[in-house]
Amino acid sequence: MLEEMGKAAKAASYQLAVLSAAQKNQVLMTIADRLEAQSADILAANELDLADARKNGLSEALLDRLMLNPARLQGIANDVRQVCHLADPVGVVMDGGVLDSGLRIERRRVPLGVVGVIYEARPNVTVDVASLCLKTGNAAILRGGKETYRTNGATVRVIQDALKEHGLPAGAVQAIESPDRELVNQLLKLDRYVDMLIPRGGAGLHKLCREQSTIPVITGGIGVCHIFVDSNADAAAALNVIVNAKKQRPSACNSVETLLVHTAIAEAFLPALSARMQDEGINLHADPRSLPLLQQGPAVVSAVTEEQYRDEWLALDLNVKLVDGLDEAIAHIREYGTQHSDAILTRSIVNAERFVNEVDSSAVYVNASTRFTDGGQFGLGAEVAVSTQKLHARGPMGLEALTTYKWVVFGNDTVRS
Amino acid sequence: MLEEMGKAAKAASYQLAVLSAAQKNQVLMTIADRLEAQSADILAANELDLADARKNGLSEALLDRLMLNPARLQGIANDVRQVCHLADPVGVVMDGGVLDSGLRIERRRVPLGVVGVIYEARPNVTVDVASLCLKTGNAAILRGGKETYRTNGATVRVIQDALKEHGLPAGAVQAIESPDRELVNQLLKLDRYVDMLIPRGGAGLHKLCREQSTIPVITGGIGVCHIFVDSNADAAAALNVIVNAKKQRPSACNSVETLLVHTAIAEAFLPALSARMQDEGINLHADPRSLPLLQQGPAVVSAVTEEQYRDEWLALDLNVKLVDGLDEAIAHIREYGTQHSDAILTRSIVNAERFVNEVDSSAVYVNASTRFTDGGQFGLGAEVAVSTQKLHARGPMGLEALTTYKWVVFGNDTVRS
Repeated sequence: MLEEMGKAAKAASYQLAVLSAAQKNQVLMTIADRLEAQSADILAANELDLADARKNGLSEALLDRLMLNPARLQGIANDVRQVCHLADPVGVVMDGGVLDSGLRIERRRVPLGVVGVIYEARPNVTVDVASLCLKTGNAAILRGGKETYRTNGATVRVIQDALKEHGLPAGAVQAIESPDRELVNQLLKLDRYVDMLIPRGGAGLHKLCREQSTIPVITGGIGVCHIFVDSNADAAAALNVIVNAKKQRPSACNSVETLLVHTAIAEAFLPALSARMQDEGINLHADPRSLPLLQQGPAVVSAVTEEQYRDEWLALDLNVKLVDGLDEAIAHIREYGTQHSDAILTRSIVNAERFVNEVDSSAVYVNASTRFTDGGQFGLGAEVAVSTQKLHARGPMGLEALTTYKWVVFGNDTVRS
Repeated sequence: MLEEMGKAAKAASYQLAVLSAAQKNQVLMTIADRLEAQSADILAANELDLADARKNGLSEALLDRLMLNPARLQGIANDVRQVCHLADPVGVVMDGGVLDSGLRIERRRVPLGVVGVIYEARPNVTVDVASLCLKTGNAAILRGGKETYRTNGATVRVIQDALKEHGLPAGAVQAIESPDRELVNQLLKLDRYVDMLIPRGGAGLHKLCREQSTIPVITGGIGVCHIFVDSNADAAAALNVIVNAKKQRPSACNSVETLLVHTAIAEAFLPALSARMQDEGINLHADPRSLPLLQQGPAVVSAVTEEQYRDEWLALDLNVKLVDGLDEAIAHIREYGTQHSDAILTRSIVNAERFVNEVDSSAVYVNASTRFTDGGQFGLGAEVAVSTQKLHARGPMGLEALTTYKWVVFGNDTVRS
């Protein structure tokens, strides 16, 4: 079955690759319209998924993530309409010139071909990913969370209706419509047809893809992010940035997990930190040196473990460690970080420069919250994933990350001498 | 052992990443000088490797590929000096601006970190890859062909002497100095330390890496390249391009393997092709439709098999197939090509445009030999590999392909609202 899907996706990708931006936008507008017009089918499928999820004892919070209603579907449709406004990177000539041999050469942006996406429960991702792939002329094979496989299937059928209305094949957007995990394993081996695989989920999913996939994978999304508070940081401003980085959306991968504080300011800063964290409801996990100082304040504080330095809290919990200076801060980030987003709060331009140059992360910040690592915030207009690997794309991936290039060479019956 | 090498390489990569172009060029010049000054060590190791190779019955042609002498070592040293003249991509600001939030943002080119390279016998690749990695601030772990493991080890020790002379760690360039294949399997799993893996070898090595590596891999180097001779091609010019694409270096991945000829010109073109191929000593493998026409000429011709369409000849052998037009030519290339290099010979601008847009290969040519797909020919100054996958880099990979980027963000104690 996966083999057939791959073949159909590859065939469709050839048709998508030669569409103009205007043609692709027309398809997207039809998809948006049909998501509203055919919402009954999607909502009915969602009902069945929700019933199963309730039966399986999923939490109310999780049920809410799975749930669609007319307002949410309209929001999703409007997001598709927004994608029409983004510039189409396909066809852009990146560079070019005339070679010594007389050949005229160009590097042109082209679609990747077929993109496979494996994601967790939220059903809006189905439309989100499909629209970004179509906008860039890529076919997509989608494998959403098993809790919403009916919703995802119904959604993709609406998208396929829109494709057919424009004379395009249903193979352009396909869903793996089964909760069977074995199909994920099959998808991972479909390198003959799938050009890029994007897992969007937890560390386990990324590990599975890295180990099992024969398709090039974009891994990322795991953020053990740090803020280093330098000896000359502005304490009041630092506390605001820390609260924002932790609390604005604790479940996000770009939220801060570990605070590294310069020992020189420990005595003044840590009690103030404790007071503020208590106000904000943030629990602290402290290293042996910071623990006694933090215990002078009102915050809930316990001893941090080595393990906790390596994991995302994704909750109102924050590790605190004293460091003797920038070198130790950088060394800690290199050892425990996930190359996602790390920040320095400082008034020293020398230390800022060193931090930015020596911390090897997708996004490095000076005097700002780590929460900005996001395609929308970075001005990319959209985000298909956040990469923490170094090949192809790093950090927030916008439309450009869904393209590759080809070398186009024009000769005059030219031969190599 | 591999774990230790990975750790040392990662540590070294942090030092390399902050070197200026001038500092890196000084190291390269010292490497070149020492390759000449310490040639005795390398040549002695090469003698031992050659003796083993003779004992194992390797062909004279293969022995010649493995063999180093003072003149060849000087050539290798001069190649290193050439790398100094190339522009350093590291530190280049790719784009940037001010975001709505007031943050100032830049995308800066940075080294990948640690690059692993697995290659076959030629000992010059050791120096070649090491110098390109150092030029771009990357540490390298090299695993050359087992036939030259002593030569590669001795070469890397000379490079390490040069590194130490400049206060840099030996971990910056390391060789896996053992013929044990199990070490390759260990290298493939070293994702904690190695950021990119480049296999340079045959289809088997690429398959092994794609299937087993947990490190992002660049696959490529396999070229089943096609030339489509359109109905309105200039026959005399076409024959010259075909001979060049096949014969200039048959063992190269960018040499042509299959000729697709428009049926409309078959009766005139195929006998002329046969005569020219006979002159050039090229054997033909023909499909059922072209076979009788080719048999009217003097060339050695036999029936082509399905299998032969999928493989590289890497020899003076050429498949010939008649196609009813551009659509069939494109369909054949999609089915049997390896997305390396494919050409159309035509006087039709409409067909040229369609071929360029619809053939999904790293390099697509109009009226030129496929032999130009090469970093040097494409003006990149160097080539670390030829990628036929779509992530990160496509076609010839120059220095830029050995870099990634980081997002550098400057705020004013900025928080996300």
